[in-house]
Amino acid sequence: MAIRESVLHTVVNCFKRHGAETIDTPVFELKETLSGKYGDESKLIYDLKDQGGELLSLRYDLTVPFARFLAMNKITNIKRYQIAKVYRRDNPARGRYREFYQCDFDIAGHYDPMIPDAECLKIVYEILTEMELGQFCIKVNDRRLLAGILTVCGVPETKFKTVCTSIDKLDKISWDSVRNELIEDKNLKPEIVDQIGEYVQLNGGISVIDHLCTDPKLSQDNLVMEGLRDLKLLNRYLEIFGVTDKISFDIGLARGLDYYTGVIYEAVMLQNSEENESQQNGHLQESIGSIAGGGRYDGLVGMFDSKSRNVPCVGLSIGIERIFCILEKRYKTSGEKIRTTETQVLVASAQKTFLEEKMKLVSTLWNSGIKAEIFYKENPKFLSQLHYCEEQGIPLVAIVGEQELKSGVVKLRVIATREEVEIAREDIIEEIRRRTT
Amino acid sequence: MAIRESVLHTVVNCFKRHGAETIDTPVFELKETLSGKYGDESKLIYDLKDQGGELLSLRYDLTVPFARFLAMNKITNIKRYQIAKVYRRDNPARGRYREFYQCDFDIAGHYDPMIPDAECLKIVYEILTEMELGQFCIKVNDRRLLAGILTVCGVPETKFKTVCTSIDKLDKISWDSVRNELIEDKNLKPEIVDQIGEYVQLNGGISVIDHLCTDPKLSQDNLVMEGLRDLKLLNRYLEIFGVTDKISFDIGLARGLDYYTGVIYEAVMLQNSEENESQQNGHLQESIGSIAGGGRYDGLVGMFDSKSRNVPCVGLSIGIERIFCILEKRYKTSGEKIRTTETQVLVASAQKTFLEEKMKLVSTLWNSGIKAEIFYKENPKFLSQLHYCEEQGIPLVAIVGEQELKSGVVKLRVIATREEVEIAREDIIEEIRRRTT
Repeated sequence: MAIRESVLHTVVNCFKRHGAETIDTPVFELKETLSGKYGDESKLIYDLKDQGGELLSLRYDLTVPFARFLAMNKITNIKRYQIAKVYRRDNPARGRYREFYQCDFDIAGHYDPMIPDAECLKIVYEILTEMELGQFCIKVNDRRLLAGILTVCGVPETKFKTVCTSIDKLDKISWDSVRNELIEDKNLKPEIVDQIGEYVQLNGGISVIDHLCTDPKLSQDNLVMEGLRDLKLLNRYLEIFGVTDKISFDIGLARGLDYYTGVIYEAVMLQNSEENESQQNGHLQESIGSIAGGGRYDGLVGMFDSKSRNVPCVGLSIGIERIFCILEKRYKTSGEKIRTTETQVLVASAQKTFLEEKMKLVSTLWNSGIKAEIFYKENPKFLSQLHYCEEQGIPLVAIVGEQELKSGVVKLRVIATREEVEIAREDIIEEIRRRTT
Repeated sequence: MAIRESVLHTVVNCFKRHGAETIDTPVFELKETLSGKYGDESKLIYDLKDQGGELLSLRYDLTVPFARFLAMNKITNIKRYQIAKVYRRDNPARGRYREFYQCDFDIAGHYDPMIPDAECLKIVYEILTEMELGQFCIKVNDRRLLAGILTVCGVPETKFKTVCTSIDKLDKISWDSVRNELIEDKNLKPEIVDQIGEYVQLNGGISVIDHLCTDPKLSQDNLVMEGLRDLKLLNRYLEIFGVTDKISFDIGLARGLDYYTGVIYEAVMLQNSEENESQQNGHLQESIGSIAGGGRYDGLVGMFDSKSRNVPCVGLSIGIERIFCILEKRYKTSGEKIRTTETQVLVASAQKTFLEEKMKLVSTLWNSGIKAEIFYKENPKFLSQLHYCEEQGIPLVAIVGEQELKSGVVKLRVIATREEVEIAREDIIEEIRRRTT
C-alpha cells in the first residue's frame, strides 16, 4: 500500500496538473449498461445475484460508466480523472488480477482535431517518465486507418473485429503466427493476408504515415485519408510537446475494445530497460504487456443518450497494477525498506510508571499536528521501544523520565545517530518539526 | 468529490498522525466470511451471482474483512486505517446509501487496558473538532455493563440481542416507546422493564459510573465490575487527553452489531449546533444519526482462525457520508463556490492562430510542475477564455500574442483584479508560483 500510495500520488498529481477534476461512479452498473460494449471480453463481467430490484454487474472498466454518467447528466464537456477498482472474472497472473485499479483521464467535448488527443499522449509520456520505470515506447495508430486497410485488402466488414483480434497479438507473437491464424482460423485467403501483412508490420516515425499518404489504394478511402491527416497533425502537436522521441506509429496496433473510433495508443516497456535486463531472457515485455493505453471513442456516449446525441471523447488509462509490480520487485531486490507509516516520533520512557506523562506529551504533540505514537503498555521495555523505531523507520524518540520532568525538559534521541539532546518542553514541537521535515 | 477529497484528507491526516498504516482488502469476501457477523442486518448483504468458482458477497463493513485479514495473515498487532466503500441493500435516505465510504481506524494487539481505547476516542474527538461541524457529544458505554444490567434485571440471555435492539432506539424514540416495545413486542414483564429503565436512562459524566459502582445488585456481577473499572480508567486517560468535555457515559447505548465485547461509543451531533438551528424543528439529529462509532471486539479475529486464537481489537468508524451531507448543505447555503480543479493558470491568446505558441508555453509550464490548461480550439474567443477562468476559479491567465512574442514576454492577467503585468518569458514560472501558492 505504501508503494501504491506513492505511485497513485504521482498519477493524480499529473492529472491535476492538466486541469482535470475527479468524479466517482458506483462499483456496480445496470447489467444492460455494460452489455455489448466489450466484445468478446463480456464473459468476464461479474454479475450480482438477483435479490430483487435491478440486475447489476460490477464495473469492467471506467470508460463505459464515464460515458453513461455523461449521457445521464447531459454533460457535453468535461476533463475528468477517476482512480478506482474494476472487476474481471479472469485467471489471475502477474500484474493481472480479478480486482484492480484503473487510473483514467478523459477529455470529453466538441473540440478541434487532435489537440486533446495530443494532451493525452503528453500525459502518458509525463507519467511514465516520472515513474522512472525504464525505457518505454508509445505505439500510435488510428482505427479508421486500420479499417480502411482491411477494406482495401478485401476483408469483408463482418470479419473486421475477429481479424483485428488476431492482428492485436502482433506484440506477443510473430507475423507468421498471426498470418497462419488469419488463414486457418479466420478463413482469409493467403493473398489477402499477405496484403494486410505489408501494412500492419509497418512501424516507426512520421515517415510511416507520409509513406501511407502516397499509397494509391489507400488514397481512395476518405476515412483513411482523414485518419492519416489527423495522425500528421497529432505528430505536429507532439513535436511541440517534445514527446516524439517515444512515439512509434505502429500500423499493427489494434486494441481489443469495441468502442474506439479514431486515434488509439498503447505504451509498452522496452526490452532493454533496467527491469528487463534483470530477467533471464527478456520475456518480461510479454508478461507485463502494455502499461498504458487509450484512444478516441466518439460514439460511446450516444449509446446511452435517448436521442443518441454524441459527445466525442478521448482518454487514457494507466496500467497501474503493472507499474506496482515493477516497482515492488525493484524495492524487493534493492533491499531498501519502505516505511508504511509517517510517524515522526515515539514518546518513550526508560523508567516504569511514566504512562500518564507519556500520554500527556503525546497528546500535546498530536494537538500540534506532530505524527506521534506511544506504546500501549504501562511499562514497556526501553529497548523494545528503540527496536520498534528502528523497525518502523521512526526517526526520533522523545524520552520522558523523572530527571527530565524535574528539569522541564524532554530528551530527544535520534535513532540513526544515537545522539541525545535535552530540549526545553516548550521547544519540543519546533525541534521535532525541524528535525523531521 | 471536491468536498469529499477535503474531508477525507482531514481524516487520513489524523489517522496518520496516530501512526496508522493502511491496508486494502477486496470489495468482495467469501459469503461464509460475512455470515453470522451482523445479526439481523445480514439480510442487507449483496451477494454475487454464482458464475462458477467461490460464492462471494460484497463487503458490508470494513471490520469483518479486517479481522479475516488479521487471522489469515497471522498478524497479532497492527494499527491500521482503511478508507473504502461498503455495500448494503438498504433503502437510500439522507446520509444513507447502498454504496458508501467507511473510514475505519483499528488497533489490534494484546495491550494494557484502555490505552488504545482512549486513543480511539481521542481520534474521534480530533476529527469531529477539526471538521467544525458544530457541537457534538461522544456517548460511551460497555457491553459487559449492559449485559450485566440485563442479567440482574432478570432478562434471559436468549433475549439479550433483541432487547438491546430496542434499547438502541433510545436516541431516536422516548423511553416510553421503548418500554412499550419491550413489554408488548419482546414479551418482558413490566417490572423487569422498569428496572432496566432505571439503568438505561442514566447518562452524564463519570459520576454515573461512580454511582453504578455502589449499586448493590450490579456489584454481584464480575463482568460488570470489570466493565465499570475499565470505564473509570478510560475516563482517567481521556482526562489526560483533554477530551472529557465531549464524553457522556450513556448506559442506554447498545449499538447494533453483534461483535462488540467491551467499551462501545457513538458520536452524535447536538441539537443546538449550527446546522441544526437552520432546521425548522430540530429533527436533524434523528435524520443524521450518529456520525462516528466504534468499540472493542476481542472475539472477532478468533472466528477466522483455525485454532480460534484471538487478537483483541478496538476501533472506530467515521460516518463520513453524513459529514459530507452536512458540509455539502453548508456550502450550498453559503453560496460559496468550491473549485473542482487546482489549475493555476490558463494559457490564452487574444488573437487568432496562436495555438502552437500556446501549446509551447503550456508544455513548458507542465514540465515545471505548474497546473495549467489551454482551450482545445484553434481560435477560441478571448472573452470565453476569461469567462472560463471565472467559472472555474482559475486565478491567472497567461496571454500569448504577437507583441508579447516579439518582446520575449508573457502577459499575466490576474482574474480577480484584472491587473495585467508583462513578465519576461524566463521568469514566468517563478511568477506563477509566487502568485498562486
